[in-house]
Amino acid sequence: MNIGLLGFGVVGRGVYDITAARDDMQVTKVICLEDITLPDAEVTRDFNKILTDDSIDTVVEAMGGLHPAYEFVRAAIEAGKNIVTSNKALVATFYDDLLPLAAEKGVAFRCTAAVGGGIGWLSELERVRRVQEISMVGGIMNGTCNYILDSMTRLGLDYGEALKQAQALGYAEANPSTDVDGIDTWHKLILSSNVAFGVSMEHESVPVCGISRISAEDIANFKANGLTCKLVSRGTQAEGKYTAYVQPTLFPQGALEAAVPTNFNLITLDGEYSGRQSLYGQGAGRYPTAYNVVEDCVSVLAGKSFYSPYGGKVSADNSVKLRYYVRGGDAWIDSVTAEKWGTASVTEPVAVNEIHAWLKNNPEAFIAAIAE
Amino acid sequence: MNIGLLGFGVVGRGVYDITAARDDMQVTKVICLEDITLPDAEVTRDFNKILTDDSIDTVVEAMGGLHPAYEFVRAAIEAGKNIVTSNKALVATFYDDLLPLAAEKGVAFRCTAAVGGGIGWLSELERVRRVQEISMVGGIMNGTCNYILDSMTRLGLDYGEALKQAQALGYAEANPSTDVDGIDTWHKLILSSNVAFGVSMEHESVPVCGISRISAEDIANFKANGLTCKLVSRGTQAEGKYTAYVQPTLFPQGALEAAVPTNFNLITLDGEYSGRQSLYGQGAGRYPTAYNVVEDCVSVLAGKSFYSPYGGKVSADNSVKLRYYVRGGDAWIDSVTAEKWGTASVTEPVAVNEIHAWLKNNPEAFIAAIAE
Repeated sequence: MNIGLLGFGVVGRGVYDITAARDDMQVTKVICLEDITLPDAEVTRDFNKILTDDSIDTVVEAMGGLHPAYEFVRAAIEAGKNIVTSNKALVATFYDDLLPLAAEKGVAFRCTAAVGGGIGWLSELERVRRVQEISMVGGIMNGTCNYILDSMTRLGLDYGEALKQAQALGYAEANPSTDVDGIDTWHKLILSSNVAFGVSMEHESVPVCGISRISAEDIANFKANGLTCKLVSRGTQAEGKYTAYVQPTLFPQGALEAAVPTNFNLITLDGEYSGRQSLYGQGAGRYPTAYNVVEDCVSVLAGKSFYSPYGGKVSADNSVKLRYYVRGGDAWIDSVTAEKWGTASVTEPVAVNEIHAWLKNNPEAFIAAIAE
Repeated sequence: MNIGLLGFGVVGRGVYDITAARDDMQVTKVICLEDITLPDAEVTRDFNKILTDDSIDTVVEAMGGLHPAYEFVRAAIEAGKNIVTSNKALVATFYDDLLPLAAEKGVAFRCTAAVGGGIGWLSELERVRRVQEISMVGGIMNGTCNYILDSMTRLGLDYGEALKQAQALGYAEANPSTDVDGIDTWHKLILSSNVAFGVSMEHESVPVCGISRISAEDIANFKANGLTCKLVSRGTQAEGKYTAYVQPTLFPQGALEAAVPTNFNLITLDGEYSGRQSLYGQGAGRYPTAYNVVEDCVSVLAGKSFYSPYGGKVSADNSVKLRYYVRGGDAWIDSVTAEKWGTASVTEPVAVNEIHAWLKNNPEAFIAAIAE
């Protein structure tokens, strides 16, 4: 396999390093905007040099961002090249465009590293789907949020302090919005639901709220009630009906989710025969992520394409009711409150879509679902 | 795929049910010692009817036990049939005989359900090995022991009460020795090490001790020190040196292992690029186990054989030193004791092989390693 590598940052460099030791593949051209030289690969700023190189059968996209990653990947598919990417935003955003095109052109499209970094999550969904229906996917999919919540819980830090520490350690970006507002988890949930259920989930039907409003007061409330807060995604299917949402969620202190430390991920499926299965590991980082990119290249060599057939558009129906912890409520929250934890409310079961709609109009509030 | 199914108990019946709904495989003959009839398969007591049936390409062994399972599986391989089995004792015991023979005869040999039941553990090792070296495998591999230890910890039960409850719920056999003495975990560790490291681990070099000597007093000691006891296997490789052992192990209450409830399994690998990864799920039960048997049949159809090349014999060098909790010590234990928890000792680091040798001569004692 001859690889054209787009991007030579954290992931791209890792892919280059891992493939360098292999006989079955080599990176022959690299797109990099910096002036570097590599012993075994041509470095260029010109994507056309990869696109028009017939010896390159596979494009590994490790640039991140939507543009020009989308244009490059689309052109590569059109040119009959296989795609391997770790870019969850790209795949989730352009799912309806790129996946049917890849199928039409008969090229492989793999993105295992896009969800769970070094965890074999999407590839396990692919395996599981061969024998059983999946009724649920979801879990802790963002290491930055888990690191912040874990620090706040274990060390008693404020949100701002925990974020600063995560940034100092390289676990959070200078602009952390994509992680802490849940967008990264949202992309991963949409992609996981698409693969697990064989659908294309309507993005607008999937509500998301993140952790940036959480306070030390909230954490103290959770601890006092034997609960631990995690940012969690959840997607379900049953009889043609779907749910999908991302929100802070409270687990009993003895639950597996509550034991996930620092920047680790824990992602779960529920299968009709296997029951609940969870995968735990490093959801980010150079070598874990690059490792799964290279796994995907091996899978392409073994004849694998995408993880599931492309399915049509579906919308999440989030009418399922959960109990919520709410700080910063109003008269409506008061009307559904079952008990008070300090100044915060714990509600009777309310519909997921209803409380997320309320939150849009009350952006200063913080909510967390109480896991069943 | 035409399947000859050996055994129609818990797992065999599950395999029959799951395959009945599939187009790509069917069970055409079943060995069953009871007089039953099946709509789509011939039931017989005569293995030769399967062996000499050229239309049967794959034998699924779900009888359990070593004999006649071994003779049947060996004859089926000789006859050029693929093997799928969930029988860990069979595969671990006859590894050096069956695996080279299967390779020589060019037939597939799969046993994913043998370790972790419904968890895709061996198949994930197979995937992981394509790109990285594995330095460690192990974890909670026996649901019976986990159920007993979890009941003792959460409900304060005695060992005898917890065992009785597990038996009443079908989580433990009438004769529980294979589970509670760690033999089941020992077979699973040997098989996991063989696959992960590409070796054949010398059985005699792998010490095992189980949980049957544990008491409510021990559990109280662990709780008082913030620890939770699990029966755990561990195999490592580094620079051609191996360790492998099975023993009760104490984890901090916040650790992932400590959060594994009831009869679940949590199995972990450490990879050079991915770091630690764990798989969690139902390690036993009709449908989880049968599910992975059927997954193996699909993998055989997809051209997969065994998980790793057959490797030569190696011995575990268990000179690694760990701290141990010991109840029922003697003068030697006193000489290595660092502190006392009630009447029990907590030792300085002692070599794994040394304390297991001591335990052989002190069978009334209970030991548990303290996880690092």
